[in-house]
Amino acid sequence: MTEMALMFADRAQAIDEVIKPGLEAGRIVLCDRFTDSTEAYQGGGRQIGSDLVLDLHRLICGGLQPDLTLLLLPSFEASLKRARRRNDRMEAQTGKNEGRFEKEQDDFYQRVWQKYREIAARESDRVVLIEGDMTIDEVHEQIVEAVAARLMAKSWSK
Amino acid sequence: MTEMALMFADRAQAIDEVIKPGLEAGRIVLCDRFTDSTEAYQGGGRQIGSDLVLDLHRLICGGLQPDLTLLLLPSFEASLKRARRRNDRMEAQTGKNEGRFEKEQDDFYQRVWQKYREIAARESDRVVLIEGDMTIDEVHEQIVEAVAARLMAKSWSK
Repeated sequence: MTEMALMFADRAQAIDEVIKPGLEAGRIVLCDRFTDSTEAYQGGGRQIGSDLVLDLHRLICGGLQPDLTLLLLPSFEASLKRARRRNDRMEAQTGKNEGRFEKEQDDFYQRVWQKYREIAARESDRVVLIEGDMTIDEVHEQIVEAVAARLMAKSWSK
Repeated sequence: MTEMALMFADRAQAIDEVIKPGLEAGRIVLCDRFTDSTEAYQGGGRQIGSDLVLDLHRLICGGLQPDLTLLLLPSFEASLKRARRRNDRMEAQTGKNEGRFEKEQDDFYQRVWQKYREIAARESDRVVLIEGDMTIDEVHEQIVEAVAARLMAKSWSK
């Protein structure tokens, strides 16, 4: 609960200082991770459950969500390999392993991965799921397509 | 919202690491400030409202409340004088004033003070209000009385 409250403290500050002023100035705001990640890691991985995360998001962040979320989700095996690589890199750099998430076991990552897929299915209007093990060029192409489609939809609606 | 989320992060950690283990070991746990203070300062002082604070308390702290709360509330004038004194002491010691609450204006303190009274009236079973400008001996006597009454009630109920 402490970890999750700290995540939301960080998010509330980012909304107030960066995201809202940006949106109010008419800019497009890019965000690396948002409440979907909290739902996946704390809600799924740590088994706190989605309801509690979404209740906190509504109370602390006013329920603010992106217009478009690009969820880059490789296969579970590839995701796990990357998490382990981050872990090894951290140990090599610092001589110790303090990664809160990196040290978790495989079943933790399985739950995170599964929760991300659940969010994508539930929030299909907002979340574009870019899945599978693709090359950088293929991922780039899918992102350009998804962003272009959303920007066009936005300008039509004005 | 950031400030409040940090308060709850701190509280969740204190509950998990100190309060719950203490209670489970059958000890009496003394706590200097708890969610009443968040309700008074953020809910009242910062005008976020009691409902939001209490919702967060239920979600993050499982609604845990003390068996007995001693609320030492001198007159508003005396309370204000003490806050200002803390402020001056901090400036004298550090050469600057970084007190988040101490630098607030009188109407902020008026709202905090009023919210504390509101909590005491609403939670009259739990909160013993020790109010007015008394000597240390008089305050001590009232605390002993309130604690003794509660401990006796506890042992009767067993």
